[in-house]
Amino acid sequence: MSRIRPLSGFPELLPAQRLVEQYVLDVLRETFELHGFVNIETRAVEPMSQLARKGEIDKEIYVLRRLSADPTVSDPDELGLHFDLTVPFARYVLENAGHLAFPFRRYQIQKVWRGERPQEGRYREFTQADIDIVGENALAAHHDVEIPLVMLEALEKLHVAVGLPPVLMRVSNRQLAEGFYRGLGIEEPAAVLQRVDKLEKIGVEAVTQSLAEIGIDGEKAAKIVALARVRTADESFVDQVRALGVEHELLDQGLALLREVVSAARETAPGRLVADLSIARGLDYYTGTVYETQLVGYESMGSISSGGRYDSLASDGKTTYPGVGISLGVSRMLVPLLAKGKLAASRSVPTVVLVAVTDEETRGEAMAVARALRSRGISTEVAPKADKFGKQIRHADRRGIPYVWFGGMAGEVKDIRTGDQAAASADAWTPPADDLTVGIVGAWD
Amino acid sequence: MSRIRPLSGFPELLPAQRLVEQYVLDVLRETFELHGFVNIETRAVEPMSQLARKGEIDKEIYVLRRLSADPTVSDPDELGLHFDLTVPFARYVLENAGHLAFPFRRYQIQKVWRGERPQEGRYREFTQADIDIVGENALAAHHDVEIPLVMLEALEKLHVAVGLPPVLMRVSNRQLAEGFYRGLGIEEPAAVLQRVDKLEKIGVEAVTQSLAEIGIDGEKAAKIVALARVRTADESFVDQVRALGVEHELLDQGLALLREVVSAARETAPGRLVADLSIARGLDYYTGTVYETQLVGYESMGSISSGGRYDSLASDGKTTYPGVGISLGVSRMLVPLLAKGKLAASRSVPTVVLVAVTDEETRGEAMAVARALRSRGISTEVAPKADKFGKQIRHADRRGIPYVWFGGMAGEVKDIRTGDQAAASADAWTPPADDLTVGIVGAWD
Repeated sequence: MSRIRPLSGFPELLPAQRLVEQYVLDVLRETFELHGFVNIETRAVEPMSQLARKGEIDKEIYVLRRLSADPTVSDPDELGLHFDLTVPFARYVLENAGHLAFPFRRYQIQKVWRGERPQEGRYREFTQADIDIVGENALAAHHDVEIPLVMLEALEKLHVAVGLPPVLMRVSNRQLAEGFYRGLGIEEPAAVLQRVDKLEKIGVEAVTQSLAEIGIDGEKAAKIVALARVRTADESFVDQVRALGVEHELLDQGLALLREVVSAARETAPGRLVADLSIARGLDYYTGTVYETQLVGYESMGSISSGGRYDSLASDGKTTYPGVGISLGVSRMLVPLLAKGKLAASRSVPTVVLVAVTDEETRGEAMAVARALRSRGISTEVAPKADKFGKQIRHADRRGIPYVWFGGMAGEVKDIRTGDQAAASADAWTPPADDLTVGIVGAWD
Repeated sequence: MSRIRPLSGFPELLPAQRLVEQYVLDVLRETFELHGFVNIETRAVEPMSQLARKGEIDKEIYVLRRLSADPTVSDPDELGLHFDLTVPFARYVLENAGHLAFPFRRYQIQKVWRGERPQEGRYREFTQADIDIVGENALAAHHDVEIPLVMLEALEKLHVAVGLPPVLMRVSNRQLAEGFYRGLGIEEPAAVLQRVDKLEKIGVEAVTQSLAEIGIDGEKAAKIVALARVRTADESFVDQVRALGVEHELLDQGLALLREVVSAARETAPGRLVADLSIARGLDYYTGTVYETQLVGYESMGSISSGGRYDSLASDGKTTYPGVGISLGVSRMLVPLLAKGKLAASRSVPTVVLVAVTDEETRGEAMAVARALRSRGISTEVAPKADKFGKQIRHADRRGIPYVWFGGMAGEVKDIRTGDQAAASADAWTPPADDLTVGIVGAWD
C-alpha cells in the first residue's frame, strides 16, 4: 500500500488511503461536535509580523511572494504559510471577539506547513485537528479536565472501531512543578525545567550535575529528580509528591487540578491517562496543565496529540483570552500507519453497486436503475462500457465494488464476493448496512 | 452577518457562516460519493516548472521560499501554491497511474490560491469542488453527459433544501463550433472563437468587423454570428444549426453529443440546462463539451461552475489520459451569499442541549447527563459556570442552543424558544429530528 512520494515531506494518499483518512476525520468531527465544538477554518496565510509575533521564529516558515513581485524588494506586508493552528486561531479570536460568545469552543482541521528538512515522521505539509476552549479574561479550571476527555473519546472510538492502538495520555501541570521548585527556594524554575527535560536522554547523574552548575545540589536536586519520576494511573501521585515534603501554594493548586483530571479520566477513559511529572518540555510553552499522547506500542512515533493551558492565548491590551486546547497530528499519526498497511479501506471507491450495461442502446435504462438506487442512498456507478459481463464484473472487482446489477429496474443483483445472484427491484433492493459504506479494517500484529 | 476581512482577498467565515459552508460541502460530498466518485487531496504546492508547464502562466502564482533561504539565489526546485485543482490532479494521475483503476472518478475539494489583485468576487484564497472522470487513452462520450448531471443534482439538492437559487447550465461543444467554421472553409477556428467571444461585450457589428479583418465577411460572418446566437432548452438547436446550411463531420459529431447532453438533462434536470452556442471562452481551453453555470437572478456573480472535456488532461508520452470534469467555485458562490445574509444557520454552535449546573459540586452529575445524551448522538455542552439559571439560559440563548437541561439523570428539559419545560430522563429523551442538526435557512427575496 506504500507509494512513491516524489516531493519529499509532502505526503499524498492513494484513494483507498484517503478513505481511511476521511473516516478518521469524520470520527473526529462527530466527536467534537457532540461536545458542542463548532468548526472554523482560518486562511492559510498570516502576515509574517504575526507569525514572528513572539519575537522568535523557531519554526521554518514558508514565505510567499507573488510571481510578478520583485524578489529583491522587501515587502512590509509579507505573508507566510501558517505553521500551526494556534497562532491563526488567536488572531481570529482577537479579530472577531465582538461576534463570538465566550467561552468559545472551536475545532479546526486544516493543513499546516513547515519548511523543515524532511525526515522520518516530519512533514512539510500535514493535517492537524485542534480543539480549544477560550474564555474572555477568565476560563474555569474544569475545562482543563474536559479537553483531554474529548480527545480521548475520539481516539477511543477509533480504537474500538478500527483497532487503532490504544493511547496513553501523559498529563502534568506547570503550577505543580513551579510550586515545587519555589517551595525548594528556587527562584528560576524555567532553568530547572530545561535541565529536567533531558532526564530521559542523559540520565539522573548528568541532570544532577547540570543542576549543580546552577547552584542546586544535594537534597534539592534529589527531590527535583524524584518529582520528575512520579507517574501514577490514579490519584496516588498526590501522596508521592507530598511525601517529598515540599510546601507551596502553587504546588497545592497544581496537585488539586491534576488530581481532578486523573480522577475524571479514570471514570470516563480508564487506563488511558496518567499523571506523569516527567513532562517538562510543554511547561515552557504552556502556563498550566499540559498533555502529551502516545500510541501504545508505537511510542517511537512520538507524541501524536499534545496541548495545554495558556493563561493568555491572545490579548489586545484591554482583554485577555485564556485558553486550553489539544492538537491531534492527523498526518503524523496516520501516514506511517497507512504506509505500513496497518489501516486499509475495504474498497478503493465509495461505490456499492456497478450497474452493468448490456449494450449502449440500453445505457439509459442502466442510468435509471442507478438513479433509483442512489435515491435510497446507495452509491452506484453505471459501467463505463458495454463489455462482456465477465469484463464488467472484473471492473467492479478491481475496485472492490461488492455488487453488480444486471438488467433494468426489475433485474438481478450479484454479490461478486460470493457469486450469489438474485432477482431484485431497483426500487426496493438494499444492501446489508455493512456494505453501504466503505469499511475500514485494521491489520495490527 | 457581514464582517471585517482585514486581509483583502482572503475571506474568513464566522462560526455560523462556516456551518452553512459545512452543510454545502456535505451535500456535495454526499452527491459525488453517491455517483461513485472517490475523494483525493493533493498537496498545496507544485514545482513551478509544473505550474508553468504549458509555457505560459496566465495566473498570478504565489511562489514559496523558506525563511532561511537566500532570496537572491534562484532555486531550481522552486515551489508554488496551486492555482486550481486540475494541474495537480493531472500530475497525480501521471504519478499514480499504476495504482489507479481507469476510468478513474475522483472529487477534490480544496483551497486554491491566486496572487491576483483582489476585487469583488475575486479571492486570493478560495475553495473549489471538482469532479473529473479520466480514462486511459480513451474515455467514452457518455461521460460528457454524466458530469453535468452530477453537478446539477448537487445544486438542485441545495435549491430544494435551503432555497439556493436555481441554476442554469449553458453547454456548448468545440467540435460543433470548429466543424461549423471548417464547414465554412475557415482554417483557423481559434481566431474566430476569440472574436466571437466578444459578442456579448461589443455587439454584432464590431464582431462582424473584426471577422472581416481576418478575411471573413458577408454571408460567412453572418452565419458565424447566427450560430453564436443559437440557444435552446431542448434539442431544437440541432435544426436551427442545420438550417444554416453548413456541413462538416466534426459539426455532426458535436451536434450529436450536445443533443445527448440536452436530452439527458431534460429528463433528470428539467429546466436547468440549455444548449448555448455563444460560449466561446472555454472552447480555447477544452477540446470537446464545455459547461458554464449561473445562479438564476445572480448572473452578475458570473459562472459559479465551469468545466469541459480535455482530450489530453495528462500524458507521459506513452499513455494519454483524456478527461471530462466540472468545477464548482464554492467560495465564489457562497461568500457573497453569506455576506448578504441570504443563507444563515439556525444557531452558531452544533449544540442541542446545554446542561445547567446547579453548583460546582454537582458538575459531575451534569457531565453524566451530557454523556448519556451524547451517547444517543445529541450534541451537548455542560454550562461553563454555576450561575443563576436565568444567566445559564441566556448563555444558551445567545448561541441559539434550543434546550436547557436541569437536574440530574432524571431531570427536566426546557425548550427555551417556547418556554415549555417537562420531566425527562437523560437515558431516553430525544429532541425532534429538526433540532438534532443545525438548520440552514435561506432568506431570499
